[in-house]
Amino acid sequence: MPPRRFHFGRTEDAIHPDTMRAALSEFIATAIFVFAAEGSVLSLGKLYKDTSTAGGLVLVAIAHALALFVAVSVAFNVSGGHVNPAVTFGALVGGRISFLLALYYWIAQLLGAVAASLLLRITTGGMRPLGFSVGPGVGELNALLLEIVMTFGLVYTVYATAIDPKRGHLVTIAPLAIGFILGANILAGGPFDGAAMNPARAFGPALVGWRWRHHWIYWVGPFIGAGIAGVIYEFVVIPQEVPHTHQPLAPEDY
Amino acid sequence: MPPRRFHFGRTEDAIHPDTMRAALSEFIATAIFVFAAEGSVLSLGKLYKDTSTAGGLVLVAIAHALALFVAVSVAFNVSGGHVNPAVTFGALVGGRISFLLALYYWIAQLLGAVAASLLLRITTGGMRPLGFSVGPGVGELNALLLEIVMTFGLVYTVYATAIDPKRGHLVTIAPLAIGFILGANILAGGPFDGAAMNPARAFGPALVGWRWRHHWIYWVGPFIGAGIAGVIYEFVVIPQEVPHTHQPLAPEDY
Amino acid sequence: MPPRRFHFGRTEDAIHPDTMRAALSEFIATAIFVFAAEGSVLSLGKLYKDTSTAGGLVLVAIAHALALFVAVSVAFNVSGGHVNPAVTFGALVGGRISFLLALYYWIAQLLGAVAASLLLRITTGGMRPLGFSVGPGVGELNALLLEIVMTFGLVYTVYATAIDPKRGHLVTIAPLAIGFILGANILAGGPFDGAAMNPARAFGPALVGWRWRHHWIYWVGPFIGAGIAGVIYEFVVIPQEVPHTHQPLAPEDY
Amino acid sequence: MPPRRFHFGRTEDAIHPDTMRAALSEFIATAIFVFAAEGSVLSLGKLYKDTSTAGGLVLVAIAHALALFVAVSVAFNVSGGHVNPAVTFGALVGGRISFLLALYYWIAQLLGAVAASLLLRITTGGMRPLGFSVGPGVGELNALLLEIVMTFGLVYTVYATAIDPKRGHLVTIAPLAIGFILGANILAGGPFDGAAMNPARAFGPALVGWRWRHHWIYWVGPFIGAGIAGVIYEFVVIPQEVPHTHQPLAPEDY
Repeated sequence: MPPRRFHFGRTEDAIHPDTMRAALSEFIATAIFVFAAEGSVLSLGKLYKDTSTAGGLVLVAIAHALALFVAVSVAFNVSGGHVNPAVTFGALVGGRISFLLALYYWIAQLLGAVAASLLLRITTGGMRPLGFSVGPGVGELNALLLEIVMTFGLVYTVYATAIDPKRGHLVTIAPLAIGFILGANILAGGPFDGAAMNPARAFGPALVGWRWRHHWIYWVGPFIGAGIAGVIYEFVVIPQEVPHTHQPLAPEDY
Repeated sequence: MPPRRFHFGRTEDAIHPDTMRAALSEFIATAIFVFAAEGSVLSLGKLYKDTSTAGGLVLVAIAHALALFVAVSVAFNVSGGHVNPAVTFGALVGGRISFLLALYYWIAQLLGAVAASLLLRITTGGMRPLGFSVGPGVGELNALLLEIVMTFGLVYTVYATAIDPKRGHLVTIAPLAIGFILGANILAGGPFDGAAMNPARAFGPALVGWRWRHHWIYWVGPFIGAGIAGVIYEFVVIPQEVPHTHQPLAPEDY
Repeated sequence: MPPRRFHFGRTEDAIHPDTMRAALSEFIATAIFVFAAEGSVLSLGKLYKDTSTAGGLVLVAIAHALALFVAVSVAFNVSGGHVNPAVTFGALVGGRISFLLALYYWIAQLLGAVAASLLLRITTGGMRPLGFSVGPGVGELNALLLEIVMTFGLVYTVYATAIDPKRGHLVTIAPLAIGFILGANILAGGPFDGAAMNPARAFGPALVGWRWRHHWIYWVGPFIGAGIAGVIYEFVVIPQEVPHTHQPLAPEDY
Repeated sequence: MPPRRFHFGRTEDAIHPDTMRAALSEFIATAIFVFAAEGSVLSLGKLYKDTSTAGGLVLVAIAHALALFVAVSVAFNVSGGHVNPAVTFGALVGGRISFLLALYYWIAQLLGAVAASLLLRITTGGMRPLGFSVGPGVGELNALLLEIVMTFGLVYTVYATAIDPKRGHLVTIAPLAIGFILGANILAGGPFDGAAMNPARAFGPALVGWRWRHHWIYWVGPFIGAGIAGVIYEFVVIPQEVPHTHQPLAPEDY
């Protein structure tokens, strides 16, 4: 286990093949995720003039849920399956990753999202990616708070199922839980601010579709939510490592 | 394993850090669940004037299924993943939790649901939560029985997959089964009484949206259903602890 | 492992508490399944006059998939999680269950389906269950073949994931695979003959709603399909128990 | 583990019972998959005149996701669960399967897809399978690139979750990840080129429905995408077998 305080990272790790492999893994996994996720938004636009229906939101939410589940799975054993700069930030805040490695992850995730958005633009015959924007009747601060709350839930889920040393059997379904909280939160937050919870997911389509309105919300909100989740889980929920004589609430005994 | 009869709980446990951590875990998990669940109802209202469509019910049911799966997962190893006062009551009836701890759980669950409902009110730009009500053409007693039957299914699922000492591999998919029976029951019962199966899920939006009509149904029904499930599973389905010479029906041999 | 040829069963097993417990488990699990499954059909009728839409089929298919997954899960370690007279027949044909026990299961499954249908009739304020019928433009023999083919897929899945001694890790997701093949087949076969694949699922609503037209199809089709699947899997796919020097196709080596 | 370079295969394996069993397993699993997958397309046409809606795409994508998950599951321990000539090609390129065995798999997969398409034609009362075609406003080369990109994602997922020697707990959810990336990619790519990612899935309905327009795309695209994924995963992502003193990015430590 790496130290649980901030650490910059050792320089020799930066050129280690495992580091390169992890960055490649984040790049490909983020590209797989953003391709299906943003692709579902374009696909809905292709199908249907009026995209603001229950069926349309279900389509987009299921695509995100399934694609993030798969992206986390494919990267899980190589890079930890972050696929999201906010998750990497949450892991950094909890001291679970060095700053240097986080930097590699962020670059790989953003490049993956951009690559996917470019491929979407070509394969759809030139459709301009839509990305995220704040819905009518929703203020910028409401949207910011919404991103904070939803990303808190996402990163708390990452911690509880994939990082917590007591996670046990849960690790098997961790990628599913991470994908599905994204889907559930999109069903709740989609009509209000699009429900990104992931700066890379927002950045790729924004760059390729060149739409920057409200873009800051999708960076600041997720980073704040992820930071709070990392601090609470790492320093409050994870038990102190003093020996316990009993663990009355663990499912084994309950 | 705690005693399988009613027990009040030891006073020193009430201030033990593990107890606090468990209550915090229930608070956060219930908030994550109610945020996405009630959020999906508001989101549907935002999208669509006529919310009574198949697509709308699918949207709400999927949001509940995914969000409860995640909420149970994140709390599973810390507090057992109840996320529902009726589940806690079922565990109490079966002697799986002390009364004192149940009290902590109930308070944490209700506070989590209220916090999520308040956050929804702010992040949606002021929408008033809807909560639950009995549909047209359905009597109060029909709705009460519906909540009893559906919560019986939910708590029976909790017992079979998460509590039964013979659960084996099933424990890995327990949170999925718990979330998905909620989703399936909402697809069946949604148009009739909303299909709560969870007093905290009903209470948070009722308080913040100040809608109390029929509210008693969503407390009495779930508690009765959970109590019946707890008694049947604990005292009839779980095998007696006399030694068996064979277990002819266990999947290993079948 | 029980003998892999037909066997009647020992009389003393018929009154063994494990047998009673297994029958109770099948009764409750089938009731949970049929309640949500048939309930979703009534719920769709309540919501929507024109039920023949893509959204309506998705609603019904998801309800069946999730509810069967849960029903199989809750009964898995107690009774093997058949929840379906055709599955029990497939297990009987493969010699995996005695005739006496199969009889108990069939009775329990049918009673569970009837109980669920009665509860639905009450809780919906008197709606008459719909059950299954053959769609317009589809002949009875087409429908019979459709039930055979789809039930073959379902029972083959039960064998491959829950019974095959080489199933390994798959057993963890067996209930999910069993529920999801039902859902997938309903999405394919629903508009043609309703897609039952389960005589108990068809019988409960038929009795309570008193609709018997085409009912024989939903008994004969599933039993034929299940019988073929049982024979093929048990006697062809499951490797002979002669020692192998290598297993070149097992995933461990592939 | 078989050699990780191209190998033709030993002649005696070609008639080994395990080889026959594996081919049978691929045949049945592909038939199960194609029956529900193409069946959902016919079912949508039966229900609904205007099939180009969000609900229709969700219906078809869910059917594919669930059915592929099940098909991979049922074949997983017998034949590796390819169910797709492109996956077999990816495994061949990475040296995970001999050429002779791949040939058997391809024949079995194509026969399974044809059998399912014939059964669909009969059970639907004569409906002509639709298969795949390129959507309006999408060029052939766009569609080819789309198939390459999406199949890359699918085969990368197969490698990461089912083949990678470091896959660990992931193997339990490998069939789910493989089915769900198909579903997610259909939600993204469906309106543009149908989103096959599987030559057998395209071939069966093309033969039985006799529709060959653009058919080459659904062979060339998937094979190129699968080949790239096989090469990248096998020779870049899978760590070299030199001993490591640490694996800083494995989830156990992260």
